[in-house]
This record gives sequence, structure tokens and C-alpha cells, in this order.
Amino acid sequence: MLSNHLQNGIETARLVWSRLPGSEEGETAEIELPSQSRGGAGAESLDYEVIENYAYREEQAQRGKLWVSYYVVLKWLFSLLIGIGTGLAAVFINLAVENFSGWKYAATFSIIQHSYFVGFLVYVLFNLGLVFSSVYIVTKFAPAAAGSGIPEIKGYLNGVDTPGILLFRTLIGKIFGSIGSVGGGLALGKEGPLVHTGACIASLLGQGGSKRYHLSSKWVRVFESDRDRRDLVTCGCAAGVAAAFRAPVGGVLFALEEVTSWWRSQLMWRVFFTSAVVAVVVRSAMNWCKSGKCGHFGSGGFIIWDISGGQEDYSFQELLPMAIIGVIGGLLGALFNQLTLFITSWRRKYLHKKGNRIKILEVCIISLVTSVISFGLPLLRRCSACPDSEMSPGIECPRPPGTDGNFVNFYCAKDREYNDLATIFFNTQDDAIRNLFSAKTFHEYSAQSLVIFLVMFYSLAVVTFGTAVPAGQFVPGIMIGSTYGRLVGILVVKFYRKLNVEEGTYALLGAASFLGGSMRMTVSLCVIMVEITNNLKLLPLIMLVLLISKAVGDFFNKGLYEEQAQLRGIPLLESRPKFYMRNMTAKEASKNQKVVSFPRVVKVGNIASVLRSNKHNGYPVVDQGQNGETLVIGLILRSHLLVLLQSKMDFQNSPFPCDMRGINRHNFSDFVKPVSSKGMSIEEIHLTADELELYLDLAPFLNPSPYIVPEDMSLAKVYNLFRQLGLRHIFVVPRPSRVIGLITRKDLLLEESDHSATTELQSTSVRSQHPLLDSLLIQE
Amino acid sequence: MLSNHLQNGIETARLVWSRLPGSEEGETAEIELPSQSRGGAGAESLDYEVIENYAYREEQAQRGKLWVSYYVVLKWLFSLLIGIGTGLAAVFINLAVENFSGWKYAATFSIIQHSYFVGFLVYVLFNLGLVFSSVYIVTKFAPAAAGSGIPEIKGYLNGVDTPGILLFRTLIGKIFGSIGSVGGGLALGKEGPLVHTGACIASLLGQGGSKRYHLSSKWVRVFESDRDRRDLVTCGCAAGVAAAFRAPVGGVLFALEEVTSWWRSQLMWRVFFTSAVVAVVVRSAMNWCKSGKCGHFGSGGFIIWDISGGQEDYSFQELLPMAIIGVIGGLLGALFNQLTLFITSWRRKYLHKKGNRIKILEVCIISLVTSVISFGLPLLRRCSACPDSEMSPGIECPRPPGTDGNFVNFYCAKDREYNDLATIFFNTQDDAIRNLFSAKTFHEYSAQSLVIFLVMFYSLAVVTFGTAVPAGQFVPGIMIGSTYGRLVGILVVKFYRKLNVEEGTYALLGAASFLGGSMRMTVSLCVIMVEITNNLKLLPLIMLVLLISKAVGDFFNKGLYEEQAQLRGIPLLESRPKFYMRNMTAKEASKNQKVVSFPRVVKVGNIASVLRSNKHNGYPVVDQGQNGETLVIGLILRSHLLVLLQSKMDFQNSPFPCDMRGINRHNFSDFVKPVSSKGMSIEEIHLTADELELYLDLAPFLNPSPYIVPEDMSLAKVYNLFRQLGLRHIFVVPRPSRVIGLITRKDLLLEESDHSATTELQSTSVRSQHPLLDSLLIQE
Repeated sequence: MLSNHLQNGIETARLVWSRLPGSEEGETAEIELPSQSRGGAGAESLDYEVIENYAYREEQAQRGKLWVSYYVVLKWLFSLLIGIGTGLAAVFINLAVENFSGWKYAATFSIIQHSYFVGFLVYVLFNLGLVFSSVYIVTKFAPAAAGSGIPEIKGYLNGVDTPGILLFRTLIGKIFGSIGSVGGGLALGKEGPLVHTGACIASLLGQGGSKRYHLSSKWVRVFESDRDRRDLVTCGCAAGVAAAFRAPVGGVLFALEEVTSWWRSQLMWRVFFTSAVVAVVVRSAMNWCKSGKCGHFGSGGFIIWDISGGQEDYSFQELLPMAIIGVIGGLLGALFNQLTLFITSWRRKYLHKKGNRIKILEVCIISLVTSVISFGLPLLRRCSACPDSEMSPGIECPRPPGTDGNFVNFYCAKDREYNDLATIFFNTQDDAIRNLFSAKTFHEYSAQSLVIFLVMFYSLAVVTFGTAVPAGQFVPGIMIGSTYGRLVGILVVKFYRKLNVEEGTYALLGAASFLGGSMRMTVSLCVIMVEITNNLKLLPLIMLVLLISKAVGDFFNKGLYEEQAQLRGIPLLESRPKFYMRNMTAKEASKNQKVVSFPRVVKVGNIASVLRSNKHNGYPVVDQGQNGETLVIGLILRSHLLVLLQSKMDFQNSPFPCDMRGINRHNFSDFVKPVSSKGMSIEEIHLTADELELYLDLAPFLNPSPYIVPEDMSLAKVYNLFRQLGLRHIFVVPRPSRVIGLITRKDLLLEESDHSATTELQSTSVRSQHPLLDSLLIQE
Repeated sequence: MLSNHLQNGIETARLVWSRLPGSEEGETAEIELPSQSRGGAGAESLDYEVIENYAYREEQAQRGKLWVSYYVVLKWLFSLLIGIGTGLAAVFINLAVENFSGWKYAATFSIIQHSYFVGFLVYVLFNLGLVFSSVYIVTKFAPAAAGSGIPEIKGYLNGVDTPGILLFRTLIGKIFGSIGSVGGGLALGKEGPLVHTGACIASLLGQGGSKRYHLSSKWVRVFESDRDRRDLVTCGCAAGVAAAFRAPVGGVLFALEEVTSWWRSQLMWRVFFTSAVVAVVVRSAMNWCKSGKCGHFGSGGFIIWDISGGQEDYSFQELLPMAIIGVIGGLLGALFNQLTLFITSWRRKYLHKKGNRIKILEVCIISLVTSVISFGLPLLRRCSACPDSEMSPGIECPRPPGTDGNFVNFYCAKDREYNDLATIFFNTQDDAIRNLFSAKTFHEYSAQSLVIFLVMFYSLAVVTFGTAVPAGQFVPGIMIGSTYGRLVGILVVKFYRKLNVEEGTYALLGAASFLGGSMRMTVSLCVIMVEITNNLKLLPLIMLVLLISKAVGDFFNKGLYEEQAQLRGIPLLESRPKFYMRNMTAKEASKNQKVVSFPRVVKVGNIASVLRSNKHNGYPVVDQGQNGETLVIGLILRSHLLVLLQSKMDFQNSPFPCDMRGINRHNFSDFVKPVSSKGMSIEEIHLTADELELYLDLAPFLNPSPYIVPEDMSLAKVYNLFRQLGLRHIFVVPRPSRVIGLITRKDLLLEESDHSATTELQSTSVRSQHPLLDSLLIQE
């Protein structure tokens, strides 16, 4: 039915297209980017290609078995390296944070033996210095490193590439920024940034190092397809979570549930491998540090709250207070999302438009306020007497100055006293959480102290969120949650008077409920909580509070990351089509667009003017069939047209189809767009008047079979197609006039025994039908 | 472009189709079924509908908000009920098995104090009686309950419904059959059957009880769509694993990795909830039994091997023996798959064709052989002296007769001796595994005993696999693996002479390696092993051996379940397209089919003759457009045609399109096919000669927009479309002549603020365009 020439053209196009790296589809999603994360460089156009890419495999097959083995080995090697890299980064961050904090508290404690005022000054300045270094690095050097980075990574894996998020300098900014901001005692955590760090490491490995800093190595640059890169970034995310919480299974589930919008079961094992490598690296490093070689690190750092000494059992009466914790978590979490959304959007609209100075000033002020509150409030608090050492053996109260632990003696008159507010406030957050979770410490905290802390810390966390420093929300969330959890626990202990009820258990449930109410994660959060507390027996309770807090939170607004992604203009495709889509057809959805198509052979001048006149990123290409009717022969991408226009190699004088030699002129890596870059623009390409009069045959460069849907298919169906296959363009076409064939399960399932024969047959027939193709294959 | 009449027809079709329950697509995959699992009833045609089903939701929307709430509440209620049901079933099976085994061993031990021969007879007869009851139930009453059921469930969730697997009597057969076969001491486990049990419970709940046994209740039958049912079955699978291993997270991952071929993140939370409910139920039951109300149950039953007292650390030298365990696991696992495949196919071809008597006889002989070996071999084995009680405190050696534990005194001359072979062989499998995993029991087993046990048990497991009793492969796999693992452990202890090396750890790794080498599961298996041993620290080691054993196994053959599914003729679509598909086009793939299409209004006689003359399950429907050109207006399913032919309500005299009143004549549940039934056949429908001359307008009943692909799309792309969206039919159509529109990410992402307005607008415009549709909506 198709003319022979056209048929050949399309065949060659398939061949060539399949070798264009990572470009099965490729829409440029233009998003208005936060000036903060781009350093005010103006809107950039993004390019992000699809999952559905056999191009690379096709190329592999052509390069032979050896290449495939190399590719597979490299894939696993990279997973290993991502694991090692992320693990080491996590160890480094923790080491630095713990040491800075250790020095800070040791110095402060030793000075306040003499003068509280000097101690206060030292404390404030130490914090300010660390925070300033963090905000300075981020604003001057790596603007994309601000915030947690999870919404951006989520966007990347969903199909939207925010410029700058996966660069080498973002990685550096993230690592050192985290150290400063966490070490400086701000109300934020290092977990979100670690996820981003893992993703950066993965992406940099995938592109063979940073090109800008000449750290790139050609021989490892085999991951040219976007699918491969995306797989690596997924591994990196899981590695980040695994490193942050020492929760390998939680990491896998986080990557699965929270960040990726698609999933292949083959990937799962690789992601799991990466997570396990992280676990091994972190464990080895911690063992190494146990001998005291790492300064203050030996005593803490990683989030692992062993409450295995705590409550193992629960009675049915306890379910009510636990449900109440769930409700509180949902309410406070939703409120947190709403407040941060409000403040962030205000910041973006007014404050951060005024430049980097304001950003730095803002963070410094917040640091000052935080220091004043965390030092000052405990001063105002009366000390409590230490618990009777005979009643509760094994408790050291007060703890010796300069060490970590419970029962801080801070501004107490007597020796055998401790300051409960200072125990949680004037401490690193990890230690504070460990203290809140601790079992066998009844009545350590007074309800009053917990309420004060809850209110102050909640406010600080809301204000700190969205500033220009790397900031995770896990640890603040756990702090807030465990505070009100412990409050409820105190009431339960008072009310039920049962011996096996532990306040620490309620603190844990509170933490789960707040995270559930704010981030709305479910399975992964549950597993992370179980893994960090190393107690499987609390799983049903954690699930219960998560179920409730998520349901309550969902009643008010969306999850924290979704809200933030939306605010940043990162368009995430949700897993479900919206309800109204069921009543719309594909045609109606695409009605407001004018389709601009190219003929197969087109004047260079026309291409240039079309590219200038609109912002579409994909154009249908049409040609005449044998009987003179028009036929859609494929899709050409703007980015590929730009490459062709710039190289000028394929321009021809004749307005007739060329003889297909064009495809060998190109190095196919020309068509690869580097990660996190802006790509080319038509304005950058200069064409002479003569060149504008030449022609270009598009057939070798187009995608010969983009997905099509009939015009009256419901938009919900189209949505599913789009999302499940990770597409960028779908052609809406008229109803077909006839059905050539029907493909059913049977056609896709040839018997194992027929395989080799069929394969042989098919590939032979394909080749013999197309002598041109054959010659091309031989030519190579 | 379309004529108005046709347009209306299609619109109405969309409306009606969307209300046909669970029938977005629906191919009948005909598979040649094992006579064993069907009780020799001849090949049945299966019907299985797709995931991609908005029909139900559409219907919900029409029924209003209250209905939606009811639906959501019911969904969660069902998840709860599935969890409770599966948990109780698991408790019941365990209770029965443990009590039967307890009585058996107690009786045998008390008798052998006097006479070993009488004890032997009692032991053999007890086993034979239990096994006979199991095989009798299965062969006479529930043939589909034989085997593990996991391949069939996998097939069901992949899109192929094996008749009988989800019936009420299969459930009953599975539960009681498991009790008999496991209690009777065969070399098989109860875990696979528990997964099947969970799936049955879920499916029965989903269809509102068993219709055949009049246990069906109308008001819970809201899950008419196949997607809802499939979701429930997924929950059931996870619940089964959670119950079998007390591993809720493992259950979720098992369902995710192993059984489902597609996944929605919304489902995950529900699956997890179900698993957690199971965990709570099982835990409560066990607590209740601790007080001794459950006979022998209190002492064991559930698989939970607490090796927390064991090795916590490992040195790098140990990685080599661990890797060796991985290799052994891969080799033995692949061999196991190959042997069982061979024996099963021989059985199906020759043995099981001869009827149920042979099946019963076969199982009874195997039971006799198993009893003789497990009793006889320990008799031939010399006893060893008990370890010095001062060196290893806390060990009771020999254990008192009739209790569970290590160090069985069996046919020993002296009091302070134990029989190491009897400790693992003459014992329930759960106890044997606990003994093999046990820490602090160096040199309990001689290498010789372990080798004897390994060889004998491996052979028994291979022979037992595929007989007509419910049979899981997890526990035998763990037995085999932990035996050679412990063997390697003995060598390591001897060789490295380090104090902190535990033989039990190696046994655990051996178990993981054999399961990995045979079933090729990865993440879920890893998590299950971690959860049953309650020791997160061994995770990286378990991963290492799994990685190796899976890779080694994959070198030889496919996983156990895939091999078995293939043998049973269950066509599973793998997650990746085959390589040769890249070189094939959609047209080539559908070439051997002749497409039979219907006009919109068709003579009843023609329908009947077409349905008789071929076995297709979907037919394109074509009609004339405004300009007289033909247009494909949709897809009609064989099953729907059969319903229409049988009801005869829509037959009309005129050969012209009807006025669409037809759609209200039908109760839409007419079109639902019950789970695991064979559905209608054209031979069962009797039409008079007059009726054959009447006409039928197909427009209201067709799927107006099936997915289409252009003829020259590569088959690999088509495969992905097919599998990702869970389709049954794809139309292969000619290249389109023009592109009406292009759908990109932007078209699918309307701003939040625009939503309500757009929704209103769109739905209004749809309605106003189609007055007929409006009247229909009002009419209802």
C-alpha cells in the first residue's frame, strides 16, 4: 500500500531513529522555574526523553554480545558505585555534623561552667558561622541545592527535568550545605538532601562524570538513553534513603512508592542491591569509628533509635490514644503543609526576588532566633530532680558535661538535677529524638516542657522550610511528632497506670503520625520507621496511626512534596486520571492546539520559521502515498531539527527524497542532550540566505511510529496510555477506515520451541525485503 | 466529519460500554488445561477482562456520592475481612497440623519406649491416614487444590483464568488437604497453599460468596469489575504470604514482585493494610494459645526462626564460603526445577491420565516411603554424646520425650546421647528448620548425617512435587538449603576457628540461596528471610547469596513458578518483550489472522455463523461515514454477542440503526462472567429460523475506542502497550492520513485553579452536543 520508496524511507527511519540515543519521544516541557533554584537565569526549556526506549538495546545488539556483557556488568558496577558513593557521602556528612555539633556543645558546656553569657555567645556564633557557610555556598555556588530536592527528583523521574538539580556543583553544594545547616542547629534534617545527593551521584556516574569540570570519562559513557539514566537516579534515591535511615528495604520502597512514576520489576533488584551496598558501607564505617577514630562521631550520628528495650506488647485500650495520635498527626501535618506552602509562595513572590543578600540575611536571622530560643528557653525552665537511682538503675543523671545522652544538667542549681527542656532543645536533633524515644524513662519530661518545645519547634520548622539551605523534613517531622506523641504517652501512663506502657512507644507513633500527615507516604514510611527502630512488633500500630493520619491529612490538602512540586511549577502526572477526563475525548483535549506538520522533504527556511513561530516540541511529518493520498509517516522532534539545522550536513539541493546516506554522517551522540542542561535554541543557530533555500529530507531522523489514538477516545484512556508508557507525544488521528489485524495475547506468546525459528525467519524476511537496509547494515 | 447519526451511535456506545461491567476489553484466552486440576472435564474457554476499566467508576459516579463512599468503605472492609479470614485460616491450618504432628510424635515416642516396631507401625499408619485423607479430598472434591497454586494465581493476575482455582470448594480442599499432607509428614510445605487460600478467600468475598453453595449475598456484590476482583486477589496473595511467614512487608513485596504483572501505587497501601491485619490476627491467636489452650500448638507451628541470639557480625573472609553457598544454591535450585519439570510432565502425560485411583495410590506410596526413610534412617545412625552441659549452658540434652526441641534421644543406648539425624528427620519440618538454624549448637550435626539427610530429602521433595495434594515449596526449599548451608558452616567453623561464626547463620544463608536458585525471587524473598529470622543485620549477606544463586540459576533455566506455569499451559506475558519482537512489525505479527468484522447492523444469522466458524473473541465493527467511506466504530466481544443472542431482546426487523432504546433493556450484570466459570458457548444458544432473519444493532454494545497501533509499529512497542495497560485486543490499522491533534503533558495537566471551570465546561459541551445522550441521562 505504501509506495516502495516511502516504505524504504520509513524503514530506514526506523533504523536510524532507533539509534538516536534516548529519543523515542521527546517533548520539551517548559516550566516556569523558581529563580531561587536557578540563580535567576530566566525560564529555561527542558528536554526529557522517555522510558520507552529500545534505541539503546538495538544499538547494543548491533555492537554484539561482548558489548551487552560490558553493558550489564557496567550497570551493576554503577549500582555498586552509587551505593558506595552515597554511603560514603552519608558517612562524611554525619561525621562532619556530629563533630561540629560535638565541638559546639563541648565548648559551650565547658564555658557555661564559668559564664552563661559567654557560652551563649559562643553557641550563637558557632551556629551562625555554620549556617552562614551553608547559605553562602548554596546561594553563590549551587542554587539548585536549596531545599530538600525530593520534589525535583520526583519531577525528574516523572518526566520533568529541572535544570541544575543533577549537576556536580549541586552535589557539592548539597553535601557541604547540609553539613552547615544541620550542624548549625536549624530546625531541618539531612535526610531529604541525602536523597538528592544519591540522585546526583547516580546521574553524574551515568553521564560519565561532570563535563564542566573535566571529570568526564568517555569509556563509562554508555548510558546515553534516558531510561538508563532514570534507572540510575532511581537507584540513587533508594541509596539516599537507605543511607539516611540505614533502612535498605525502606529505601527500595521509598523509591518505588514515592519517587518513581513507573516501575519495572527488573529494576527492583538492582535498586535493592544498591541499598544493601549502602547498608554495608555505612555499617563498616560505623564499626571503624567505634574505635574512637572519628572524634564525636562514635557516639551518634546516624538515625537509628533502638527502642528494642521498650514496649513489646499493647492492650486494646491503648488503641484509642493511638488513634488520637493519628488524628493529631493528620491535623498538624496538613497544617504544616498549608503553612509552608503559604510562606514559601510568599517568599518566592516577594522576598527571594530581591536577590541573594536577602536570602543570606534571612537564613542568618533564622539561625539567630533558633539559637536564642534553644539556649534561652531552657534557661527559663526550672530543673527537675533526677530520678531515684535505685528505682531506675542504669540511668546516669545528670549526664557528665560534654557527653551525649539523657538528663542534661543545664542551669541547674543542684548537682542531682536535670533540665528536661534542655535535654531535647539544647542538643543535636538525633540525640533529642533518641531521648524522646527512650524507654524506661517515665516522667523524664514534664508536659509543660513538651508543649513549649512543640510550639516553638513547630514554628521554627515552618519558618525554616523554604530558605536557601539544604533542608530535609524528616527529622523535624519526627521531632514534632515524637513530642506530641510523648505528651499523649504521659497521659496514657497516668490514666491507665499499666506497667508495660512506655512513653517512648507513643513518641515513635507520634513521629509516624506526623510524617504520615505531612508527607502522606504509607508503606515506605512504615518500613522506614520499623527499620530505624529495629522493632517489627510495632508494625501494626505504626500502620494504624499512618492510616488515620494520612486519611485525616488527605481531607485537607495534598502531600508536602506534591504541594511543593506544584508551587515550583513541576507538573507531576498523578497516577490516576482526573475525573473530568472521562467525559472528554482526545480530540477535545487537543483542540486548542494548531497542529503544524512538515512534509517529508522541507525547505530549511520553512523549518527555521516554523521553529521560531511556535514552541511545539514535536511535529508530525506527512508524505504522499502511492495513490497520492497523504500519510503520516512519523514524528520529528524540535531538538533533533535543531541539531540538523546546526550541523548543516544534511542540507540538499534537490526537493526530492535523498538516498539515505545522511544517516551515516552523524555521530549519534550529537543528538543526546546532557542532563540538566537547557539544550539548544533556534535563536542560536545562524543560517545564511543560501542555506535557507536548501532542502532537508526528514525521513531518516523521524520516529516512524509514535503512539496514536483515535479522535474520540476518552481522555482518561489516553492519560493512562501516556503515563503508563511515559510518553511525550501522542498523535490524535481520525477513526481508522479498516482494521488490518488484531493483536491478542496469543500473537505475543509464541511457544518457546518456535522462538529461534521465528526469530531467524523474521529477521531474514525483514532484511530481504529491504535491500537498502541490508546494504546499510553491511556498510557499517 | 462523522455523520451525526453515527456520532450519536458512538457516543451512546461509549456510554453503554462504559457501563458494561468489567469489559473494556475481553479476550478469551483458551488454554489446554491439566486434566488433574480440572478433574478431566475437557478444555474450557476462559474469559478474563482487563485492568483498564473505568466502567465501574463511571457507574459509581452515576449512582452518586453515597455510592462512592459505600464502595470505598466496602473496599477497605473487604481488605480487613481478607486479612482476618486468611489469618484465621492460617491459624487453623497450623493448629491442626501441629496438633496432629504432636499427637503423632507423642504417641510414637511413648510406644518406642517399649517396642520400636510397633512405634514404627503407628507412625507409618498415622502418616498414611493423614496423607490419604488429603489426597482423597483433593482428587474427589477439589482437583484444583492440588499443588501450590501460585502459578495459577500468577496466571490469574497476569490475565489468564484457570477454571476452578478460585472456587469455594478449592478453598476447602486446600485448607483440609494442606493439613493432611503437611501433618502427614510429606516433604512439602503449607506456605504456597496459604497464598492460594488467601486468594480464594479474596475472590469469594469479591463475588459476594459462593453462588453454588448459596452463600452469596447480593448487597456485597459491588465488585463486578475485574479490576476490583484482581485487586482483592492481590490483597489475598499478600495476606497468604504474611500469614505463612508472619512477614507483612514480605507479603506486600511478594505480591508486588512475584504475582502481579501490573501495579498501582494506590493498591499498595491496601495490600499492606491487609498484611498487617493478618499479622495482628496471627499474633493475637498465638498469644491466646500461649496459655496452653491449643494443645501442641503453643510450642511451634508458625515459621519464625528467631536467630537473634546468633551471629551478628561477619568478617570479610567469610564472604567466600557464603559465595560458595550461593553457587550451590543456584546449581541445586536449577536442578530442582529441571527435575520437577521433567517428573511433572511425565506424570501429566502418563500417570495422571489413568485416573484418580492412580493418583491416590501414588501419594500413598510416597507417604510410605517418606515414613520408612524418616523413621528408618535415624535407626541406622549411631548416637552422639550430648555436649558438655558446663561448656554450653542452657542446652537440654537429650530433650524429654514428647517435647519439641533439639537433641532428640532416638534409639540411643545411653541416656546422655542424642541422634542427630533423628533431630532433623524424625521431627516436624518447622522444628527441624529451627534446629538447623539454631545458634550456639556447634557440632550438633555430623557432616555425614547432613549429607544423608540432604540427599534423601532432596529426592523426596522432587518426587513429592506435583502429586495430587496441596504442596508448597518454601519449607522443603528451606530444609534443603539449610542442610547444605550448615554443612558449609561446619567447614567454616573448622577452618577459620573463629568464635563468632555460627553454623546456624550459614544454614539461614543456605536456605536463602536454595530458594533464590529455585524460585528466583529476590527482594521479597530477602525481606521474608529477614522477617522470619527477625534479624536485619544479616540482610546484606542474604542479598549476596541471593544475587549469586539467582544469577547461577538463571544461567540454566527459568524460575520454578514460570516453568510450572508454562507446563500447565498458562501463558504468562513476561515483563520484557522478546528480542526478536524488535524486528517485527505489528502487521507481521497479526498476519496469520484473518480479521472478521461486522457491520453496525447485522443479521442475527450472520452473527451466529461467524461465531461458529471461528474462535475469535473480539470483532471490529465497521460502518459508513458521511461520505460513504468505511470507518471502524469499535470492538465487540464474543461474550457480549453471546449474551445478546441469548437474551434476544434486541433483535429488530429493520436493517437500519435502531433508536438506542436497547441499552435500557439490559441488566448490566448480565454481561458479567462469574470468576472461574467457563462462560457461554454458541452451541448452547438456540435460535429459530425466524430469529436468524432478524437484525441486531451492535452500536450500543461495542467498545467505541479500543487501542490502535499503526501497521508498521515495532512489535516490541506493541508488546509494551499491551502489557502495561493489560489489554486483550489491539487493532492494527493503516497509517493515518492526517493528525488531528497532538497530546502532550501540558494537555493532561490543567492548572488546579482551572479544574472546576474546565470540568464544568467540558461536561456541558459534551452534553449539549449530543441531545440524545442528554435525554438518555435524564431518562435513567
